[in-house]
Amino acid sequence: MRVYGMSTSGNCHKVRMALEALKLPYEWTETDTVRGDTRSAQFLAMNPNGKAPVLEIEPGTYLPESNAILCYLAEGTPLLPAERLPRARVMQWLFFEQYSHEPYIAVARFLRRFHPDPESQKTLADSKMAGGYRALEVMEKHLASNPYFVGGSYSIADIALYAYTHVADDGGFDLARFPAVRAWLARVQAQPGYVGMPA
Amino acid sequence: MRVYGMSTSGNCHKVRMALEALKLPYEWTETDTVRGDTRSAQFLAMNPNGKAPVLEIEPGTYLPESNAILCYLAEGTPLLPAERLPRARVMQWLFFEQYSHEPYIAVARFLRRFHPDPESQKTLADSKMAGGYRALEVMEKHLASNPYFVGGSYSIADIALYAYTHVADDGGFDLARFPAVRAWLARVQAQPGYVGMPA
Repeated sequence: MRVYGMSTSGNCHKVRMALEALKLPYEWTETDTVRGDTRSAQFLAMNPNGKAPVLEIEPGTYLPESNAILCYLAEGTPLLPAERLPRARVMQWLFFEQYSHEPYIAVARFLRRFHPDPESQKTLADSKMAGGYRALEVMEKHLASNPYFVGGSYSIADIALYAYTHVADDGGFDLARFPAVRAWLARVQAQPGYVGMPA
Repeated sequence: MRVYGMSTSGNCHKVRMALEALKLPYEWTETDTVRGDTRSAQFLAMNPNGKAPVLEIEPGTYLPESNAILCYLAEGTPLLPAERLPRARVMQWLFFEQYSHEPYIAVARFLRRFHPDPESQKTLADSKMAGGYRALEVMEKHLASNPYFVGGSYSIADIALYAYTHVADDGGFDLARFPAVRAWLARVQAQPGYVGMPA
């Protein structure tokens, strides 16, 4: 398998974390979304939506959407429960991540750290803080009485939410008031096959 | 089962469409997100993220996130393929819907049609048009050579994308230039158990 992704993107890093946790062999093609690699004709042929990551499952078979890739890779492994309700709970947190977490925490991080002119983006970045803190509060509440997001064990729900939470400070978020989130970040980092995101 | 949802919300209507297609009995508790029903202590105990719909699977067991609810309901039925790659493709389109479609098309519709002072929201609503049209273009391209989103048959991917696409004109989107999308809308409306969204 081959991943087309940007190493400093949380959405792309999720895929690397799952591949490493599952000890699956893969190759990685660095894809710079800021430079516009994802708008090339070659990339759009793989993913007409023009976003990374994309997983090349076999030559010519491409799967986009980071959390769909996590579902694909984790199928049949302990990272994705087989039973109906725990499986749906994993989905619940994956959709929470893409709708209520990433658009605030990842976007604030992008604007403050990767935008070519961060100062010009300050008002927009600031507008993402309230939503990001709301997501962190939902996570804190859940993690105060659960070691992981679903069923007491590590799953792709944890991988998806870890990706941008562990670099939330890049976006200006202060995790000091989220002790359960910080303890969970440490539990994720202690997982077999854990791989850090390049700085 | 009981759905806590707002009948005029596409995210909530998805759940009704799946329940009706699967001929599952359910009750519906109308939940007005504009009035603030989703911020009550009672509602937040069901979904700390304060969003509708929520599916009450059995007393005290609550599942939020519209697309996670679709996955739960469709498990083991023709609406969600069992094989690994088609299943991942359904997930691909469900995440596309929540990240690249709903935040533009549903939000523009909300601001223009349901906001108490739509005129004050015009600039914001207008800013959602480009993203919404990009999503419609991705759909048009796919549907030009596929009758449904995954594997040639009706699935929860179609239900999820139908919900806000069929009322995109409420948000100011013109579907005239998307003939494949319009033909697909008609195919969805011809499904057994199809139920329309209250106007």
